[in-house]
Amino acid sequence: MSTVTSKTLKNVRPMGGPATDMHITDGVFSADAPTGAEVIDGGGRILIPGLVEAHTHLDKSLLGLPWYRNEVGPRLIDKINNEREVKVSLGLDPQVQSERHAILAMSHGCTHIRSHVDVDTHHGLAGIEGVMATREKLAGMIDIQIVAFPQSGMMTRPGTAELMDEALAMGADLVGGIDPCGMEHDPKGHLDTVFALAGKHGKPIDIHLHERDALGWFSMEEIIDRTVALGMQGKVSISHAFCLGAVDRAYVAGLQEKLAENRIHILTTAPASAPVPMVKELKAQGILTGAGCDGIRDTWGPYGNSDMLEKAMQIGMRNNLRRDDEVELALEICTFGGAAIMEVDGYGLEPGCRADCLLVEGETLAEAVVTHAPRKLVLKAGAVIARDGACVIEAP
Amino acid sequence: MSTVTSKTLKNVRPMGGPATDMHITDGVFSADAPTGAEVIDGGGRILIPGLVEAHTHLDKSLLGLPWYRNEVGPRLIDKINNEREVKVSLGLDPQVQSERHAILAMSHGCTHIRSHVDVDTHHGLAGIEGVMATREKLAGMIDIQIVAFPQSGMMTRPGTAELMDEALAMGADLVGGIDPCGMEHDPKGHLDTVFALAGKHGKPIDIHLHERDALGWFSMEEIIDRTVALGMQGKVSISHAFCLGAVDRAYVAGLQEKLAENRIHILTTAPASAPVPMVKELKAQGILTGAGCDGIRDTWGPYGNSDMLEKAMQIGMRNNLRRDDEVELALEICTFGGAAIMEVDGYGLEPGCRADCLLVEGETLAEAVVTHAPRKLVLKAGAVIARDGACVIEAP
Repeated sequence: MSTVTSKTLKNVRPMGGPATDMHITDGVFSADAPTGAEVIDGGGRILIPGLVEAHTHLDKSLLGLPWYRNEVGPRLIDKINNEREVKVSLGLDPQVQSERHAILAMSHGCTHIRSHVDVDTHHGLAGIEGVMATREKLAGMIDIQIVAFPQSGMMTRPGTAELMDEALAMGADLVGGIDPCGMEHDPKGHLDTVFALAGKHGKPIDIHLHERDALGWFSMEEIIDRTVALGMQGKVSISHAFCLGAVDRAYVAGLQEKLAENRIHILTTAPASAPVPMVKELKAQGILTGAGCDGIRDTWGPYGNSDMLEKAMQIGMRNNLRRDDEVELALEICTFGGAAIMEVDGYGLEPGCRADCLLVEGETLAEAVVTHAPRKLVLKAGAVIARDGACVIEAP
Repeated sequence: MSTVTSKTLKNVRPMGGPATDMHITDGVFSADAPTGAEVIDGGGRILIPGLVEAHTHLDKSLLGLPWYRNEVGPRLIDKINNEREVKVSLGLDPQVQSERHAILAMSHGCTHIRSHVDVDTHHGLAGIEGVMATREKLAGMIDIQIVAFPQSGMMTRPGTAELMDEALAMGADLVGGIDPCGMEHDPKGHLDTVFALAGKHGKPIDIHLHERDALGWFSMEEIIDRTVALGMQGKVSISHAFCLGAVDRAYVAGLQEKLAENRIHILTTAPASAPVPMVKELKAQGILTGAGCDGIRDTWGPYGNSDMLEKAMQIGMRNNLRRDDEVELALEICTFGGAAIMEVDGYGLEPGCRADCLLVEGETLAEAVVTHAPRKLVLKAGAVIARDGACVIEAP
């Protein structure tokens, strides 16, 4: 990895605008040219800030392993139970897998990741330890936020809440949660525990909510009530939020009003086969929205490649975004939206922002999204981390 | 283009099975090795029959043109009206555009295309003439079926039916149709005209049906009734068929039973933002199913790249296909399914089949679908038409 963090990027087009030169001094965008710095010709390509993967699972991809033949049952619990077992039979090492996964993301221009990491009584804190080791190893090349995630349930598996507490003490950045009704069968118990852990450790919350329609609305309202009661406005995210894709748009609009009021953020994975939050509505109602690839190439399913520019395309297709300004919204979600939710300091292309950025192919931002060609160049704090679609360091 | 049509493909894995050698004699798979033929090392890659693009619009992509900034309104009719005008202002040449589009498809391993081609009183038969010229020009390298398609309506635009008649006399292979209620406002008039044209020219039918729920069911039942009355079983396809994605699965199951009984085929484009026919149900009920990319990079929207292996992935994601056998169904739809609907003779990898095939990357068929890496080699009747993701001929 090059450690040169001062550069001039000649002939680049910030956010698809007119061609210009961009200066980077000691890893930060600057109005003036650094003295004697490296000059890189951008060839008229578009410059955008680093892609933000705001919902994934670094501990569980099967990248680098022989093909896993998926014969898993159709229910959520089938996938959860299968995975807990298969991790053992495959000898999955969360450190190795998370490093492979993060390096793949970097090759596509990702500079920030929020990862949920399983905490359960079967594997204890092995996932958290593994992803923390990767975070340490890749420090400076990619920023990783860790959510302690009770994938297998806390209420239904005694001992998990204590492990969650330990994970947060060790260095996990957020408290995770999962379907308080559908998975946990005890919404009060689950959410009280999640919010108590957040209060104890002074950390934000990011809850998986797959529950649909009225069930999801109920759980979401329970989350909103606790956010208000505990003054946690701005510190709570809800991932997936399939219930916001429900047919009853009037009810959903009311719910979204309450989310906006209390600055509760939404992270969408935009699956093609489930109801999804409608990103144009979220934008119109002033709800911060980010996105993620979710798990990739894992025991849940074979899809995904950790490319957030391709995810922007999928968000566009899922939300029927066809106009250029609409496709640009999908990209905004995968950049500025995720960065705001992750509270990234100095994100963007303005002077003073950290030079986390990438050069993408295309005449316009919309073209960059729909073609999502391999990235020409990716910089993290001004240093090159990927070129022509390949990361400068090799995966283990 | 190489005209050598006898070959031995060494070390390839037909349909992801064990490695073997495959022989091609004069463009046809053969049990025995041809004498003195070219030998190609497949490097253990998977061999599959040619990809079948069974629903696209060759006459209208904007490939090769400067980026088209889409600011079109949200309704179907906005898109149709805009397109008819923009074709003039951009000076879109259907011959050039269809050649660019077909060559892109070939680069991805497509060996057969069914294309709807606009017929309207504004552009007359220019589209049909252009795509017919491309079909002639690329003969032997890709097979193109042409559907005369009244995109702007027949009932609402007098003179269109006569142009459709002329298109079919000139050499269009199928009669097209479009939303008999939603677009045409005269289901009886529209469908009677479509079926009369089919009867007169002895040609099959492929109707666009975007209508949802009960409206689509009504139109579909009108199509079924005419298919039965006119003895056209096996000769009618319905494209899109969003109404089969409706919530009322019992009603849909009954409708699908009637489709199966009368051998009416379904062509899905698997959009992420609309209800879609559920491919596992279609399979279970014995309905032939093919797929297509629909229009790509056109005035309707910026998405699409004419890669039917990527479309297989999208079908998988839209239908929540996660198990390997399910992902293989998505691939089957984009190969054997489309070929059966297009009544392609000698399709497959058996001795006696025409050597239309491609080498794809991956340990398994499912991996080939989800990664859809650039194709190593594409053969049409034994001749190389693409290598490493690039067609052997250049687009205009």
